[in-house]
Amino acid sequence: MRFDVVSIFPEYLAPLDLSLIGKARTEGLLELKVHDLRGYTQDRHRTVDDTPYGGGAGMVMKPEPWAQALTDIAVASPTSDGVKPTLIVPSPAGEVFTQALAYELAETEHLVFACGRYEGIDERVLEWAAEDYIVRPVSLGDYVLNGGEVAVLAMVEAIGRLVPGVVGNPESLIEESHSDGLLEYPVYTKPSSWREREVPDVLLSGNHGKIAKFRKELQLRRTAERRPDLIAALDVSNVSKADKNILWELGYAVVDGRAVLREEK
Amino acid sequence: MRFDVVSIFPEYLAPLDLSLIGKARTEGLLELKVHDLRGYTQDRHRTVDDTPYGGGAGMVMKPEPWAQALTDIAVASPTSDGVKPTLIVPSPAGEVFTQALAYELAETEHLVFACGRYEGIDERVLEWAAEDYIVRPVSLGDYVLNGGEVAVLAMVEAIGRLVPGVVGNPESLIEESHSDGLLEYPVYTKPSSWREREVPDVLLSGNHGKIAKFRKELQLRRTAERRPDLIAALDVSNVSKADKNILWELGYAVVDGRAVLREEK
Repeated sequence: MRFDVVSIFPEYLAPLDLSLIGKARTEGLLELKVHDLRGYTQDRHRTVDDTPYGGGAGMVMKPEPWAQALTDIAVASPTSDGVKPTLIVPSPAGEVFTQALAYELAETEHLVFACGRYEGIDERVLEWAAEDYIVRPVSLGDYVLNGGEVAVLAMVEAIGRLVPGVVGNPESLIEESHSDGLLEYPVYTKPSSWREREVPDVLLSGNHGKIAKFRKELQLRRTAERRPDLIAALDVSNVSKADKNILWELGYAVVDGRAVLREEK
Repeated sequence: MRFDVVSIFPEYLAPLDLSLIGKARTEGLLELKVHDLRGYTQDRHRTVDDTPYGGGAGMVMKPEPWAQALTDIAVASPTSDGVKPTLIVPSPAGEVFTQALAYELAETEHLVFACGRYEGIDERVLEWAAEDYIVRPVSLGDYVLNGGEVAVLAMVEAIGRLVPGVVGNPESLIEESHSDGLLEYPVYTKPSSWREREVPDVLLSGNHGKIAKFRKELQLRRTAERRPDLIAALDVSNVSKADKNILWELGYAVVDGRAVLREEK
């Protein structure tokens, strides 16, 4: 899989040389290139921004350097015949990045990231780029960053680790948060007694059935407590009797395959 | 404001030396220190992880090195008498990071970030740390990263830029996404005609009233299209006649101060 990142702060992307993603690049599982947008300017001052039409605080990124960079990258794209590369534009105004989107993007051949700074990139670039790219403005979450670089670090990590071979033990991917719509259970390691705090007995029992049940119960409890929105989104049509009981204890009834708070019924 | 970050990959945090956050540190507006967790291990191999109790894929971070690091940092905390520093533990199982939470955390004196890796940190550390810290597991969004480091880069950037003086022009903070519950309007800069694409006429008119109305309409349209959940969460009890008309055009009616899709009424 191939990644290209365009930024005026290429050195921000240095963490992608480290740890699992760095290793995957060395091993050739992922190919990643960072491009300095200023290399695509034509003036002596290498200008990338100008004042916004219509007024307002801050500066806007000029369209032409972006067009030059994106044309170069599209021409060299390794995608199969007739397949457009995907252009991700990190923006708090985009669709929300989720684990489902990470899985979807991990299936693409070529992802290009355009890191905006200041008030953003001239909107016409996104319209113009649609000829060569599938253009998707994507938001890391409902908060504002200084630029797209950190969002790209997060997205490349979340997507890259789903590419086969990148995470050594693929089982790690199965049990994690959001893979089954629930939050992860808490984890414990040695020593079993630490600063007068004990690991829950059942985890030391060796009884795999009991352990699985205990963990599932903690997942349901934690999700209900911290993220009732995830409980509401669950498909519980095939839920076990035990899980149904836990949901009931937490105040939910199962109605038409959904967990509904009983007081709201 | 003071930040401490504990990680087994201190070099991941290097982007915090750059750009606005780097400058704010140089100017003394923000103080930030990164600590290597391995410096708090006692064995020759500087071990930070072990197998999980109860079985399962992956490794769990041992409690003792964390306790040593967090004690050291709490003892040196610059918080006022009786005020606990806040310990943020990035985790996909935490509460969701939002702009509102960024504003709340920007008001604290001392934030400490514990970057988990592998399957996470032994749960007892979070219980134990509650004596010295306000402990908050926080999720950057509904996706899974390889560790907490990238989440910390994003949170420190989102929080740090809200500290007075860090962003040069504070007006930039007022008009941005999520400040009014809506997504940002698109932006344009010179040239007004670029590759046969024109900047919308009204933005060249100099009529500030018309420009404001045009931008607000684009905000409402874009939010309705991409993030209907944000429209549903809006308080529209004091909405202008013009905005009400736009909402109506987009299929919404205003009922009890909320915008409700007319077909769902």
